[in-house]
Parts: sequence; structure tokens; C-alpha cells
Amino acid sequence: MTRTPQTLLHEILRDLARFGADSSGGVSRLLYTPAWREAHDHLAGVMQRLGLRVEADRVGNLYGRLDGSTPDAPVVLTGSHLDTVTRGGTLDGAYGIAAGIEALVWLRDTWGTPRRPLEVVAFCEEEGSRFPLMCWGSGNVTGMNDCREAGRHRAADGVTLKEAMEAAGFGRATQRESRRTDLGVYVEAHIEQGILLERRGKRIGIVEAIVGQRRLGVTVGGSANHAGTTPMDLRRDALAGVAEMILELEALAVRAGPPLVATVGHVEMRPNTPNVIPGSVMFTLDIRHTNEERLASFCAAVLERFATLAERRGLTLEHAQRSSAQPAPMDARLRDALQSLCEERGLSYQRMVSGAGHDAQMFRSVCPAGMLFVPSRNGVSHSPEEYSSPEALADGLEVLGGLLHRLAYQGLLDG
Amino acid sequence: MTRTPQTLLHEILRDLARFGADSSGGVSRLLYTPAWREAHDHLAGVMQRLGLRVEADRVGNLYGRLDGSTPDAPVVLTGSHLDTVTRGGTLDGAYGIAAGIEALVWLRDTWGTPRRPLEVVAFCEEEGSRFPLMCWGSGNVTGMNDCREAGRHRAADGVTLKEAMEAAGFGRATQRESRRTDLGVYVEAHIEQGILLERRGKRIGIVEAIVGQRRLGVTVGGSANHAGTTPMDLRRDALAGVAEMILELEALAVRAGPPLVATVGHVEMRPNTPNVIPGSVMFTLDIRHTNEERLASFCAAVLERFATLAERRGLTLEHAQRSSAQPAPMDARLRDALQSLCEERGLSYQRMVSGAGHDAQMFRSVCPAGMLFVPSRNGVSHSPEEYSSPEALADGLEVLGGLLHRLAYQGLLDG
Repeated sequence: MTRTPQTLLHEILRDLARFGADSSGGVSRLLYTPAWREAHDHLAGVMQRLGLRVEADRVGNLYGRLDGSTPDAPVVLTGSHLDTVTRGGTLDGAYGIAAGIEALVWLRDTWGTPRRPLEVVAFCEEEGSRFPLMCWGSGNVTGMNDCREAGRHRAADGVTLKEAMEAAGFGRATQRESRRTDLGVYVEAHIEQGILLERRGKRIGIVEAIVGQRRLGVTVGGSANHAGTTPMDLRRDALAGVAEMILELEALAVRAGPPLVATVGHVEMRPNTPNVIPGSVMFTLDIRHTNEERLASFCAAVLERFATLAERRGLTLEHAQRSSAQPAPMDARLRDALQSLCEERGLSYQRMVSGAGHDAQMFRSVCPAGMLFVPSRNGVSHSPEEYSSPEALADGLEVLGGLLHRLAYQGLLDG
Repeated sequence: MTRTPQTLLHEILRDLARFGADSSGGVSRLLYTPAWREAHDHLAGVMQRLGLRVEADRVGNLYGRLDGSTPDAPVVLTGSHLDTVTRGGTLDGAYGIAAGIEALVWLRDTWGTPRRPLEVVAFCEEEGSRFPLMCWGSGNVTGMNDCREAGRHRAADGVTLKEAMEAAGFGRATQRESRRTDLGVYVEAHIEQGILLERRGKRIGIVEAIVGQRRLGVTVGGSANHAGTTPMDLRRDALAGVAEMILELEALAVRAGPPLVATVGHVEMRPNTPNVIPGSVMFTLDIRHTNEERLASFCAAVLERFATLAERRGLTLEHAQRSSAQPAPMDARLRDALQSLCEERGLSYQRMVSGAGHDAQMFRSVCPAGMLFVPSRNGVSHSPEEYSSPEALADGLEVLGGLLHRLAYQGLLDG
């Protein structure tokens, strides 16, 4: 098999990086924002010019399609997500879309019409950065989310998901429904966003499973008194209580050991004024583990400790689960196919767990799913410093192209 | 002496509360915002209709004046500040302005033209809620601040003080310079913003001294890595470091004992995204004490501890002093006059330290200054729950009127 070209891949990544480019040198392309909308339009134009059949669905997932010679055969789908975190990088999500487009074009130009329909998708949202949910795009495709719930989700600035979606031109009844029942397999290429591949000197990561995760919002309430006139012993300082909770969470996570990770990534203070004792503090918890039971029991233990800490200081405590994902094993046949593709090409590989959530996990109960990683420099992601070498990006494209060839042209999983 | 009326006082307070009224039920009237500008216009109109000579200076301090029969005699000035904190109450600042206006009108209507010029001022800013400085209004009057530095101060949203000032219609060379060299005395009535008067059942607080304070900005830097793929032992989590600092600050402050207080009131996270480990956290320190040496040595000890904590976690630490105020004793003759006024009227009183900073402290090296407090319910201030009873507000007005009478009509401090 000839090596796939990489011209398109780099062109698409370079162009997408412009949409949402921010002052940090990174990219902030949050769901349904003007930057996101421009990237969406740009990508639709690119795929159209390349001769793919382009269509967006009701929530704004964008597809490019090659029809198959067996039209009713289950669709082979690849892709990733178009949104980024705030001050993120240029590869998270974008790489899987760009590699998917390049792979489709290369397969068509080399091997002609596929047997099974072959599609690349740019999911509208995966990160959970603007609204308190994750994988809104792939969730609507797989039936885990429903477009009609969009009025219930609200961004920090008060805008509902429904309002944002409609402002971006989506959510109309005349647009194609998002739910797909014609999918045969989903395959995703992604940067690792961790340091394992780099540390082990491996070129491809073959994902065995994606961790399960819980995301919670916790609100701690005290008294917003004057910072100058309230003696230390008469304070009910919500932030001091939250500081204890943050350190307790860290200690519990370290004690639980890998693969458990726990993070407080978002904090909102009220009134957030230098000379006022914090009256209330809202923060998020992000907790992950490959084992569903251990994940659940850790979360319960954390919340119990938080309640004790809050009570000791006379603070109120509220918490609500914002999202939840079960651990998702990847399909064994796809893992084996990825391994044999690496072996054929002489690419070193690592079977591994994904600590990051991905769109691929949403296909758990819909169709087989597979995932490959390429190394991230220093393991850094969700940051303007996110980087993978051109060689690494080419390796991933090569293996993705090979897998899609086996799936759409050679009958892997057909039986 | 007849009891002063209180009609104007309550009318002015009720009307000012409308400007900046927010969804919390409180008032957010930050310097040079549209709400602040509307309050300014309203107040100018009120004073004009009452027959005071109205003028604003270059930074937006607003004066109402009664000329004196001895025109060149040093001015007797009273008042307070027009701005509020974010989600503050209706009395902090506004009370001293409204009481000053009512007192001036009552004195003129009862006793005619004063011997010394008598002015009431609404300082443009005292709280430090929008820009990283405090007492911008009285600082410009007393020469502690200079209007020409306005380009150097920047709000959290990036706007400079100069831009905000000009957008509000101030900062023009044609407007009257703020610096005053004709002041003979400054007197301020204010709500206590603490719980001492209520606890002791006293009706008037006579301020002995205002605490000195330091306000610092501290920035802690770590690595903004992915919350799912970065094991606990490979993290440099800026927020976890800050949590240790917050608890250490609290412990050191408790150990130091009263009257020291120390507060972290403002926190800014980057990137502040649920699934990203905090890469940098900025927070403010507000530290107060009546003794300048102890204040300075406490600040030094805190920063030394912070450096140790940051180093232990491999975090970077930067800090900068944002503002500083030395402890300010109030004039002994004014304190004695306030005491005798209380005794004459049968009002219980408490000599006390002010833990809150006030415009009065800015007059330390310019002219004698005096200050009186009225009780705050539950000691709550800088909150929508801020409240003082109509009787308490009337007591303060009564004593303020009496003191201004002695100063502007009877020759107290003349010699």
C-alpha cells in the first residue's frame, strides 16, 4: 500500500487554527460561537471542493460522504469534534477531522468507490467548555442526547444551549435529524493528550478503553462580610472551606492511586471582590476511572468528606451531577486490525487506556468503535502549547487510512 | 438644638439605590459605569434644586457648597463616596453623602450663612472594586493620587482607568483640578460595617483611628494539562497550591490575633475549564492592622510562606502590591467634640477602631479629619443585606449636623 499524502491534512489544520485564534496564541472555539460557525462554514466549503457530499444535521454535526457501491450497507464513519476548550490548541478534535477528510479523498482517488458508504464527521461539540454537558454532537447522533433538551442547558453567561444553537443557525425542524441508525462502525484518530507514548517512545496508541467520568458542580455558601471589620473568628469564609475541599480531594485521589484522577478546573466566586469575604464559591469536580464501581464509590466518599468539612465551618454545601460517562471498551476486532496495520508498516505501538473522554465512547451501545492516538509533545493538551510532530500526524493518518480501507473496501466487520 | 429633619436623607438614599440596582437585590455601582454616571447626574440635580452651588472636578468628585461669610476661611468638608462594591448595599458611602446634604440644608435653613464655607462631597470612588486602587476620589483631592496616572491602572476587563474616566465625561483639562489646598477639616458619617456597636448596644461609634491596609495581587503558575490524561503525581496544579496558601494565610492571621485580619476575596483562574488542570491562578490579599510595623511584618511573613509552598509544588509565584494605606488616627479635638455632642443628646457611644478603610484616612497629612459610625444590623455590609435602622441613620445625622455647626458656625478648630 502506498503512503497516504499529507498535504490536505496540514492545510486543513492550519486553516482551522485561524478560527478562534486568541491572544494566548491558542484557539478558543466554543460551541456555536461566531468562531465555531466560521470554522463550520470553512470546513463545509473544503469538503465540497474535494467532491464529498456535504450535509449538516440539526445540532450542527457536519458530514462529508462518499456513497458506497452497496448503498444500504452500514456506514463506515470517522472523524472527531470541531470545538475546542478555552485557550486550547490546534489539534485536539481538528486532527481527527482533517485526517478523516484526507483519508477519504486518498481512498477514493486510489481505490475508487468504496463498497460501504464512507463518511467523515466534524461533531459540533465534545469538550463541555461552554455548556455543562459533553459530547453534545456525538450524543445526538447516538441517541445519548436529544436536541429537544437544549433549552435545559445553560452557559455561565446565562445563554441556553437552545438559544446559542438557534443563533448559529441550527435547531430547526427542517434540518436533518441528528440520530443515525445506519452506522456500522466508528473510528477516530486523536492526539494522545497525555505523555505515555512519548515516554515509551511509541508511535501509535491503540485504545483499549476510554475511562468513565463524572462531572459535578459543587456550591459552598458562607457569609459575604466586610474584609476589614469582620474578625477572623466570626467569619464564614466560603473560599477557606473550598480550599480545604480542594486539598482533601487531592489527598483522596493520590491515596486511591492510578488510574483515578480528580480535578477542580473551574471556580466561580461571589462576590469576587478583594475587600469582601467570599460569600459563595461554585467549583467543578472532574473524576475519572476505568472501573465504574470504583468511580462511583470514590465520588460518594469525596462528597461525604466535603459535607463534613462544610459543616465544621458552618458553611452550606450543594452539589449536582452535570454529566456522567461510563467506561467504554473499544471493539476487539478494531484493536487487532490497528495492531496488524502498525506491524505491517513497522510502526511501534502501545495498547493503552484513554484518560480523556472522546466522541468514540458515545458509540458504546450503537456500533463497534475504535480509536488510535498519536503522541503529544510533553503530554500537553488543552493548552496553546499542544503539539504533535508532522511525522506523528502522518503516522496516524497512515493507520487510519489503512483501517478505513479494510472497513469500507475489504469487508472487515462485514460478516 | 432642634432635631434635624430626615426627609431628604431617606429620599436621597431611596433614589440612589435605584442606580446600579442588580438582580441580587443589592447595588452594583462601580466607578465610571453608566449606573454610576446616572447616580452622579441625579445627585447634582438634587443639590442644585436645594440651592447648593454644585461643581464636579476632573475625576468626577461632586461638590455642593454653601459659601461662608468669611470667604477665604478654610473649608469645612463632609461627605463620602458614590461608588459601591459589586452586589453591595444601599448605605455604604451613600449614607455619608445623603446625611451631609441634609445637614447642610438644615444648617442653612436654621442658622443662615455659615462663617466658614461648608461643602458636601460625593467622592467618585473609594471601594477599589473596578480598578486596582482605592480612594481614587479623595486621593486626588488630597494629592495621594494624581489624575494623570489614570492610564496606568487597568480593570479586569482590560479597560484603563483613563479610558473609563473619559467615557464617563471626565478627565478633561478644562475641568476643575481635583487637588484642594483650601480645606480646613474633613468629617464623615458612615455605617459601621461591623458588629461592635450592635453587640455593645451603642448608638454612635466615634472613630479613634482607621486601620492601615495592604492589598496585593498574587499569581501562582503551574501547568495547564489535561484533567483526564495527567496522573496525580505528574501535575503542577496551580489551584492546589493556592488552596494551601489560603489555608496558611488563615492560620497565620488567627495566630497573629486581633486586630489583624487577612482575606482572599478575589480569584481568577486560567483557563478555568472543568477538564483542564488550572495553569495559573491570580488572587488578591487584603491585610489590615492598626499598627504599621506589625502590618508590614505580617505581610512579609505571609509572602515568605507562600514562596515555600509554591517551591514545594514546583509552581511559580509572583506578587505585586496594589495599594497600601497607613493607619490613620482621627483628630483628637473632633473625637472629643463628637463625644460631647453624644453626651448632650443622651446618645450612647463607643470609641473604636475602624477595620474598614474610608475616605477620611486620605486626609491624614492634609487637614484634621473625624469620623462617626452608626450601627449596621448583624454587622453585615458589602452585601444586599446591608441595613441600618431609620433611628440609627437619624442619630448619625443629628451628631454630624451638630459637629458641622460647631465647625462652620461656632469656631471649633478656628484657632
